[in-house]
Amino acid sequence: MKARVTVTLKNGVLDPQGKAIQHALSSLGFDGVDDVRQGKLIELELQGRDREQAKADLVAMCEKLLANTVIENYSIELV
Amino acid sequence: MKARVTVTLKNGVLDPQGKAIQHALSSLGFDGVDDVRQGKLIELELQGRDREQAKADLVAMCEKLLANTVIENYSIELV
Repeated sequence: MKARVTVTLKNGVLDPQGKAIQHALSSLGFDGVDDVRQGKLIELELQGRDREQAKADLVAMCEKLLANTVIENYSIELV
Repeated sequence: MKARVTVTLKNGVLDPQGKAIQHALSSLGFDGVDDVRQGKLIELELQGRDREQAKADLVAMCEKLLANTVIENYSIELV
């Protein structure tokens, strides 16, 4: 089973990487960009066919390792 | 207008960061993970309302800056 976890910074948390991308885009001539935020995308290939179990496992993985829940949000999607 | 760009490594390109995550998950007791690939998620806030123009701009941004098209794929989604 394929799963896709996206980890994004919470609103209000500074994102220097996003700002760097925004400035780089601007210096390349892309002026109409108001804001850029960079997050992480983690694609996992899971064994087993129990979707509920997989979701529970993924939440635990995010809480323990994949996301820093103090400053990051995560969302889980089973494909 | 909000846009979401995902940048992932092409198949066959080694992903040491993904492997590191997989090993860390395994050492935390998550055994049913066959593979992990890490990608990037870039969320942009764009000016203007012309969706076709926005898509064309985003393709240009990906080709010029956001993705290394030798080793990475990108996909664009307007929200």
